[in-house]
Amino acid sequence: MRRLFRGATLSSLNRTMEMTMNRKRASGLDIDQGNLCSGVAYGWAKKTFANRSGRFGAPLPGLDDSFSNVMDMGGLGIALSSDGIGTKVELAERIGRYDTLGFDLVAMTADDLAANGIEPVCLSNILDVDHLDAAVVDSLMRGLHDAANQAQMAVVGGEIAELGDRIGGYGPGMHFNWCATALGVLPTGLSPISGHEVEPGHDVFALRSRGFRSNGFSLLRRVMESCFGDGWHDARYDEQATWGEVLLTPSLIYSPLITRLRRAGVNLTAVAHITGGGVEDNLARMLRPAGAGADLTGLHPPLPFMLKVQELGGVDEAQAYRLWNMGNGMLLVAPPDARESIMTLAAELDYDIRVAGAVHSRPKISIQTRGLHPTVLERPLD
Amino acid sequence: MRRLFRGATLSSLNRTMEMTMNRKRASGLDIDQGNLCSGVAYGWAKKTFANRSGRFGAPLPGLDDSFSNVMDMGGLGIALSSDGIGTKVELAERIGRYDTLGFDLVAMTADDLAANGIEPVCLSNILDVDHLDAAVVDSLMRGLHDAANQAQMAVVGGEIAELGDRIGGYGPGMHFNWCATALGVLPTGLSPISGHEVEPGHDVFALRSRGFRSNGFSLLRRVMESCFGDGWHDARYDEQATWGEVLLTPSLIYSPLITRLRRAGVNLTAVAHITGGGVEDNLARMLRPAGAGADLTGLHPPLPFMLKVQELGGVDEAQAYRLWNMGNGMLLVAPPDARESIMTLAAELDYDIRVAGAVHSRPKISIQTRGLHPTVLERPLD
Repeated sequence: MRRLFRGATLSSLNRTMEMTMNRKRASGLDIDQGNLCSGVAYGWAKKTFANRSGRFGAPLPGLDDSFSNVMDMGGLGIALSSDGIGTKVELAERIGRYDTLGFDLVAMTADDLAANGIEPVCLSNILDVDHLDAAVVDSLMRGLHDAANQAQMAVVGGEIAELGDRIGGYGPGMHFNWCATALGVLPTGLSPISGHEVEPGHDVFALRSRGFRSNGFSLLRRVMESCFGDGWHDARYDEQATWGEVLLTPSLIYSPLITRLRRAGVNLTAVAHITGGGVEDNLARMLRPAGAGADLTGLHPPLPFMLKVQELGGVDEAQAYRLWNMGNGMLLVAPPDARESIMTLAAELDYDIRVAGAVHSRPKISIQTRGLHPTVLERPLD
Repeated sequence: MRRLFRGATLSSLNRTMEMTMNRKRASGLDIDQGNLCSGVAYGWAKKTFANRSGRFGAPLPGLDDSFSNVMDMGGLGIALSSDGIGTKVELAERIGRYDTLGFDLVAMTADDLAANGIEPVCLSNILDVDHLDAAVVDSLMRGLHDAANQAQMAVVGGEIAELGDRIGGYGPGMHFNWCATALGVLPTGLSPISGHEVEPGHDVFALRSRGFRSNGFSLLRRVMESCFGDGWHDARYDEQATWGEVLLTPSLIYSPLITRLRRAGVNLTAVAHITGGGVEDNLARMLRPAGAGADLTGLHPPLPFMLKVQELGGVDEAQAYRLWNMGNGMLLVAPPDARESIMTLAAELDYDIRVAGAVHSRPKISIQTRGLHPTVLERPLD
């Protein structure tokens, strides 16, 4: 189910971790059931591919380790990517600010497309609410509009469903869950980025994030609550902001950079969107098709509030780097001759980028962490 | 917001009804907030169309009264349609049967595409759960598979999100909300079905439904609960089935017939998918572009259990025909010379179809109802 069912998929990839730590307890999610469900869902979905075999919309093979499917639509490669923003919504409910979540929603869907070299084009969103509050809906949709502008996408469809007590949340206001499906196109003449062309000696670049994206919030909330009680969102992080505000920091959208690089002819051999599973799992996923390994010694440091969360929760380095992006929201892999173009174009678009390491031929990934207790995380390639 | 936000849209179309009845109380939904929210969401969404103006994926004009948007993708017309199955999910939770909801999910999304003459191609689904139960997920996905086969679609994407107490439902099992976005293509050489070419003298055909679709369940549940108490789903409807089983009856998917008719060159001038708002609103919506009216004297009768619900709830004819499909799941409009082809092809595909009435030039819709208290519902065209 790697290819299709994102949430459960990441659980599946994380399976080996369970040997060394009880992630079920740590993350609040049931990993075994996640594996089982993802397998089940993928099994049924894959059987339906035959319905379009040899016809308009036939799913293309080759992206088994990605979260996008590219379909052949009359010679065009069109892909869909569905995702939601999970329990990050609770942050917005807690502090009453709703205009940033659109950035998380666009980031989660558009950047999954971008990770396969697919240009995001448009998006249809579904907002499930317990009851309607027009002021909240206005803020949400304004934020989605702003984020869509940044990603150069059109919001072409939507559904608002009133589901009463099927939807729960924090506090007395409107509660909601929000998800979207983004559609993207494979640029004419280009192949999807699949990782198959990764080679030893290729650079691994890290793009800096500006906060937590839409994953790892179960543990975040538990850490906060155990330190500051139920009203933790109002606890001061520093003189400028509360913890609620800091954790709500909207996701940075990386797709415009990938589009720009691809259009400039830069050869990206792999791209990993760092969400659940962290750098380690997502790096492994992007290297698996080529059977290559990598050493990352130069990742961006975590943001200061990430270190503080780690300290407050007593979260060890391995767990922090698996559940959270720890300052690195996307990784790019490219041959050495692309380095200058990548650094230049990223700077032009105001992305903070650095060379974080290199691909090698050994079947192992190692990551020099930069959390509270720096260490080297190693894992064999599976 | 007609074009984009389905749930709220229908509320908007229903606004005039409020003058004669308190639908807020009757349906359990807040119509005024619905109108406001749909307007707000559409306002922000429409501004983002400029992001694709003159580029790949530019939304085409002309479908303001539909629930699909067609985008120009390199000469191809591609459309997305998002919807969920609302609180019908509770029925499945009540009786522990999960393999029929996939038909509702495909019907809600594929038939919105079909109503614009767009062929459904594939679908990406998002399942929000409180916690995972692999057996339930297996049944849901098996049903989705079966429904996708019927609609000849591929399930190309998915997301399973564990959201804990953000998701509520009935009983002790896994609770969930389920939605999807379907992608369809406008057949080469054909225009979308927009209603603009409807003319006086065109036939209106009604396709029989086999039960409630995914709308009107708030009132259904209230009627059942007030008659049979909390465990109403176990109350016998007849010797064969409980009320829970009867109300769970899966939606019939009409898109294969529309695809077949269009491919056979049959000129459909309007198609209405009868969901929230019923025959009246959806008929008005499809006639509005041409400014035509219609008399429907020959609709299919409601299914027997629909009459029984009407009786148990003391639901008047007007309300029943607005909240429920009352036996007619889709309406087709076509010039008289298409009648024979339509009747023949529908029969070949086992759809129960009849000529229900005709289009005329007066700015009025009248519907001969066939509920418990047959009457003629009239409304001016707005």
